[in-house]
Amino acid sequence: MRNKKIVTIGGGTGSYTLLSGLKKYSVDISAIVSMADDGGSTGILRDELGVLPPGDVRQCLVALSDSPQMLRNLMNYRFEEGGLKGHNFGNLFLSALEKINESFSVGVEQAIKILDVKGEVIPVSDESMRLFIQLKNGQILAGENNLDHNEEIREIGLQNVFLKPQVSAHKKAIERIKSADVVVIGPGDLYGSILPIFLVKEIAEAIKKTKARIVFNCNLTNKKGQTENFTIDDYVKVLESYIGKNKIDFVTFNNNNIPPLLVKKYEKREGKGSVIVFKRQQKSGSYKIVMADLLRREEIKEKIGDLISGTRSFIRHDSDKLAKVLMMIAEMGEYENIIKEII
Amino acid sequence: MRNKKIVTIGGGTGSYTLLSGLKKYSVDISAIVSMADDGGSTGILRDELGVLPPGDVRQCLVALSDSPQMLRNLMNYRFEEGGLKGHNFGNLFLSALEKINESFSVGVEQAIKILDVKGEVIPVSDESMRLFIQLKNGQILAGENNLDHNEEIREIGLQNVFLKPQVSAHKKAIERIKSADVVVIGPGDLYGSILPIFLVKEIAEAIKKTKARIVFNCNLTNKKGQTENFTIDDYVKVLESYIGKNKIDFVTFNNNNIPPLLVKKYEKREGKGSVIVFKRQQKSGSYKIVMADLLRREEIKEKIGDLISGTRSFIRHDSDKLAKVLMMIAEMGEYENIIKEII
Repeated sequence: MRNKKIVTIGGGTGSYTLLSGLKKYSVDISAIVSMADDGGSTGILRDELGVLPPGDVRQCLVALSDSPQMLRNLMNYRFEEGGLKGHNFGNLFLSALEKINESFSVGVEQAIKILDVKGEVIPVSDESMRLFIQLKNGQILAGENNLDHNEEIREIGLQNVFLKPQVSAHKKAIERIKSADVVVIGPGDLYGSILPIFLVKEIAEAIKKTKARIVFNCNLTNKKGQTENFTIDDYVKVLESYIGKNKIDFVTFNNNNIPPLLVKKYEKREGKGSVIVFKRQQKSGSYKIVMADLLRREEIKEKIGDLISGTRSFIRHDSDKLAKVLMMIAEMGEYENIIKEII
Repeated sequence: MRNKKIVTIGGGTGSYTLLSGLKKYSVDISAIVSMADDGGSTGILRDELGVLPPGDVRQCLVALSDSPQMLRNLMNYRFEEGGLKGHNFGNLFLSALEKINESFSVGVEQAIKILDVKGEVIPVSDESMRLFIQLKNGQILAGENNLDHNEEIREIGLQNVFLKPQVSAHKKAIERIKSADVVVIGPGDLYGSILPIFLVKEIAEAIKKTKARIVFNCNLTNKKGQTENFTIDDYVKVLESYIGKNKIDFVTFNNNNIPPLLVKKYEKREGKGSVIVFKRQQKSGSYKIVMADLLRREEIKEKIGDLISGTRSFIRHDSDKLAKVLMMIAEMGEYENIIKEII
């Protein structure tokens, strides 16, 4: 049997988690990566060197890399002092390769060889894009980094996002979506990592037309002002409005209990309803929800203090659990029913 | 027959040239590298990150690397804009590895694996050293970078150099010198790249005691205020005074004609006598001089302008010619005489 062709759509930590799990299976992975990031080390490199944003691509490369842990640590290393402070080594690596080759994509292809990457990492576009954010009061903010740092979004609330200029999609991204068996969306920031990919028109078109099974790994938590009080249904509705068609076949969602201390921590920062709770009556679309234990258990607690304060703990997907459920969805026949509960 | 064990001593462009040629032969190379550099990108990294100087080690690693040209280009890439301007990517690579491992040597060992390096590159010490320069008027300058940038040296003249603090040699460096068949010194800046290695006391001791054949690749040009008007004999005398014993067996020297335009260019900048001319009567020591064509011919002249102005041309050793002569010296038996002219 030939390998399943899996396309992933996202960026950031979510893609890292997803790809780290998927790469353990015999599948052909093509990670299509958001190129809208303009904060932190990536933002400085964009501004100062005029390069495309390397951060999201780097995380996907490292996740899919079969190179020794040492090399993967190096790619994630962040300088802590002097003029280099805050710069991530892997970002510098990708920016230098872009400069040498005068093409981000060619640089990424070389990085794939150097890092012994299993699969493809495809920047959604080879052109420079900028994300704009419209608030509920009509105000417009320029730059993806506002999503993390702008208090106005938290207070006023986000209405929608758009790209300016519109950019062409990387040809390979279109081809891979067309011929995919499964397209996996998220987990990841809805407005920061996922929707910027659908905003590239040819990508939304390709998603609309593909015969692939489309799965959305629903986030476990909401963000104040962005996905505030979102239900699974709300996520699907927003996603499909940006795709332009009801296309989502499956949503994966965690049904393992989240430790109350962690829930409290999130609610303190992001408000009530920031940890998503599935309610049967909220499901309105024709998509199926696959409930499974997807929760990462933090295994290492270096200090008792961390355990109590919970400062080092996040509500996150577990790579292996997530990959297993996705492989089940990828492998299951039309009428097969191997999943415990599909709602 | 077992591979000859060749130890090289130096740093900078000279070591790069030497090692690029030697690596084409079946020999065991151990490059012992100066760690006194404190200028440019390296100097900034020393100051800001508190790392050891990566520049000389990087050049040796790249010279001995069997990895694709692409990766070697990356290691030599220099950022040209913004806060990263002037930083060499390979230097950042070595500094990040040092930080991650909390040891420069361990970082270098990992770099050797990543870059598929043929042979060893051994920093002369794992401790931070600083080169001090005493002028003929007794004045003392702190920092190796003065050798390239301080006008006082050119005017007053250099008397000697010393290290402060004294540092311990890397154990491997001592072992390799002890068991070497041939120790090759230079080409390279006498005061900037070669003598800082001999200033590490255990290294000078090891050189004194080794049974290896010792070869000095004499520079082709002199530096105003440093090796001003030096003859081959002057180089040998200074080297042996820092070793503490007459130890040099062979000196290689170029006998191919240097284009007059190039000679003029050097004399204009560094004064008369800046291009060394061998004179038989100047030889006083018991070392043998091996005369051969060692001159690099610049093959690519991008513009006619360059050819005329000579701005892109340097008087440099040719990697392959140099390596060939060194291999002859390494392979020749006690009484064998296969070299055209030994003086």
